Amino acid sequence: MHPLSVGMSFSLHPKLGQRSHLIGQLDGCVLLLKDHAHFPWMILVPEVADGIEDLHQLDDERYLEVCQAIRKISFFLTNFFKPEKLNVACIGNQVRQMHIHLVARNCDDPAWPGTVWAHSDWQPRDPQEIEAIVNAARAALIDAR
Amino acid sequence: MHPLSVGMSFSLHPKLGQRSHLIGQLDGCVLLLKDHAHFPWMILVPEVADGIEDLHQLDDERYLEVCQAIRKISFFLTNFFKPEKLNVACIGNQVRQMHIHLVARNCDDPAWPGTVWAHSDWQPRDPQEIEAIVNAARAALIDAR
Repeated sequence: MHPLSVGMSFSLHPKLGQRSHLIGQLDGCVLLLKDHAHFPWMILVPEVADGIEDLHQLDDERYLEVCQAIRKISFFLTNFFKPEKLNVACIGNQVRQMHIHLVARNCDDPAWPGTVWAHSDWQPRDPQEIEAIVNAARAALIDAR
Repeated sequence: MHPLSVGMSFSLHPKLGQRSHLIGQLDGCVLLLKDHAHFPWMILVPEVADGIEDLHQLDDERYLEVCQAIRKISFFLTNFFKPEKLNVACIGNQVRQMHIHLVARNCDDPAWPGTVWAHSDWQPRDPQEIEAIVNAARAALIDAR
């Protein structure tokens, strides 16, 4: 779905790459836009060694760096989409590669007020919309292009 | 369920206080143990002004302080319960007072591999177990007692 060459030693879990678009690299993480018409949904994948699955397993400095990346994306999503609420979560029960969900939520989205992870209905987002979001996110968030 | 006097200007949302036990205060947050037999589940409630609902709305310093509190609790939960996976999330679609879920998950828990928020079956935890968890968490996490 996207050309993903993000580093020599890091490879994205195939399930995270599915139905997603590469925005770019941010603070040593891969940032993806999930292709979902109903939810503005980004996934941040820190480039960490295998076996590091929970955020607190990162060392102090890296932990804070990832937290700051989460904060930057949160500002982007709320500024761009003006959602009712932002949902941020590191779950990873099924896909163990560390990844953080950031989802802009609205009262009229089909999963509201539940979580998106319990919602199975998928609709692809309009390709022009995807392009606009990815471009805006790159301009706001991605340092080295 | 617990005597909750945590400050002059801060009051816990009644829904967060339901079926929960006060562990204490940590880095300007209220830390609760959710009374649930199936999941070791803590809730961190930063003492913030009304209207601050998303983590990134905190100022830089406070944001990092809350992130560090999340990290400390993560270490406690994983050391104490030795779970398969830790789930950490700030959702708040229903209860808008900012709160962060920290849930230790195991392959044999009844919601696995789904999330706990989609799981409606509740069983109270044994009171002696609760006391042991609360005491251990206080010893490990709570500074001023």
